[in-house]
Amino acid sequence: MSAVEDAPNARENEQRARIVATAERLFREIGFQKTTVADIARELRMSPANVYRFFGSKSEIHMAVARQLMGEVEAAAERLASGPGPAAERLRTLVLASEAMNAERYLADRKLHEMVEAALNEHWPLIDDHIDRLDAIYERIIASGMESGEFAKGDAKLASKLVRTACVRFCHPHLMVEFAHRPHPTSAEMVDFCLTALRAGVGS
Amino acid sequence: MSAVEDAPNARENEQRARIVATAERLFREIGFQKTTVADIARELRMSPANVYRFFGSKSEIHMAVARQLMGEVEAAAERLASGPGPAAERLRTLVLASEAMNAERYLADRKLHEMVEAALNEHWPLIDDHIDRLDAIYERIIASGMESGEFAKGDAKLASKLVRTACVRFCHPHLMVEFAHRPHPTSAEMVDFCLTALRAGVGS
Repeated sequence: MSAVEDAPNARENEQRARIVATAERLFREIGFQKTTVADIARELRMSPANVYRFFGSKSEIHMAVARQLMGEVEAAAERLASGPGPAAERLRTLVLASEAMNAERYLADRKLHEMVEAALNEHWPLIDDHIDRLDAIYERIIASGMESGEFAKGDAKLASKLVRTACVRFCHPHLMVEFAHRPHPTSAEMVDFCLTALRAGVGS
Repeated sequence: MSAVEDAPNARENEQRARIVATAERLFREIGFQKTTVADIARELRMSPANVYRFFGSKSEIHMAVARQLMGEVEAAAERLASGPGPAAERLRTLVLASEAMNAERYLADRKLHEMVEAALNEHWPLIDDHIDRLDAIYERIIASGMESGEFAKGDAKLASKLVRTACVRFCHPHLMVEFAHRPHPTSAEMVDFCLTALRAGVGS
């Protein structure tokens, strides 16, 4: 494709990105329920009709904001998974970094949490895709540890789901809020527990 | 105390139990939000004023129903923990039975789930007490397995919190609903994972 053909698309993508970024900011500042499409348009000095050219409804903007937040977590997880170092250390860093990123997003920012709760309650396929992507990242680390002999040989796919599920209390926005006042066990203790099982052998 | 002194108390307890049982039934049939104290009184052919002699508000009835449901789960868990057999088998049965009891209560019965969500969202101390009681039951089984040599010696209190937390997806009403369409990993696979870690040694 030539740059000339690309240009309108690039402008459209830029507009979409600006709408999503503004919506995310308003969801944080005003709250998800209270923010309207008109509010988003006003911040961007656009007409609401122009916003609706890009997103059919507030719900579509909501999904785009959520996708972006989840995409940031996935990108950070990808970087950690592909980094150097033993599999055990990468797994530990992945769980602790996911917890820290989600805490920053959903615990510190209760207004953003409201947006997440709405998404979880609607059982979006987007969330399943996010979990599948995280499982794949966990699997990559665990498979490399099984390969290198750090972990016992076994079913890396099953092991990845087990570790991600065992750590759900530290990464799931709903549980992070619900158990914020119960700090034990810590995520570091849970990672050690999972590593013990991985070294001894899972699904082999 | 003589039977004569006891009698008024026994009658009061019976009245309270009838109110709680009727409220639970209406929460299941009509739903938690829609059930009023007047509905409960009508079912019992009592005046609402009489119900209020026992419970100051619908919220107090709600707590009594929740306490009863959680008490049933705790009583079943106690029986399993105190039963015969290896610690690994008791732990497996405990997790699977908790999952089955909660599935029957909160998945099959979405109206009852509404009641539980309300309780969880209000962060009742009752729920913390319930988790503490479950932790103590897990600890008893794990300590006996460490004692008998089935599990490696270690910190039974920490291990009990780790196992209960690793299995939260299978016992927490909110996650059971949210992940009902994602059956993997199964609770049996998670128990195997935890047992592998316990045999290898936790917090030692």
